[in-house]
Amino acid sequence: MADLNEALGEMLARYRHRANLSHEACAFECDLHPTYISQIERGLKFPTMRTLFLIGKALKVAPSQIVRDVEERL
Amino acid sequence: MADLNEALGEMLARYRHRANLSHEACAFECDLHPTYISQIERGLKFPTMRTLFLIGKALKVAPSQIVRDVEERL
Repeated sequence: MADLNEALGEMLARYRHRANLSHEACAFECDLHPTYISQIERGLKFPTMRTLFLIGKALKVAPSQIVRDVEERL
Repeated sequence: MADLNEALGEMLARYRHRANLSHEACAFECDLHPTYISQIERGLKFPTMRTLFLIGKALKVAPSQIVRDVEERL
């Protein structure tokens, strides 16, 4: 499922850019580390559902919308 | 976010029952351990996105549908 993590990372990066947030600003909103955000976006880390919900909240995107976008890319 | 894991666990248990699969049968389909499935359903483990997609596939439910159901319960 390497593709899953890549697709998810790409979608999160896209939504983060759309929200005009840096890694640092996004990480601050989520109370996560900027490096972790960057690793998720590059498909290097497997985020938990909890992380998905935290990032969705920070980027003002429904987690289900992010997951639907990922499904369409697989 | 304890509620998130509880809501997710409840939804997964519901979909598993609907698919008429035991913990063991579901775990076999996902290539995960039955105990892990049980722990997720009881909100004791934080599943990754990869796990969500594996379980969704086994239960023939779109992962985005599961996430949408969770959002409605939070």
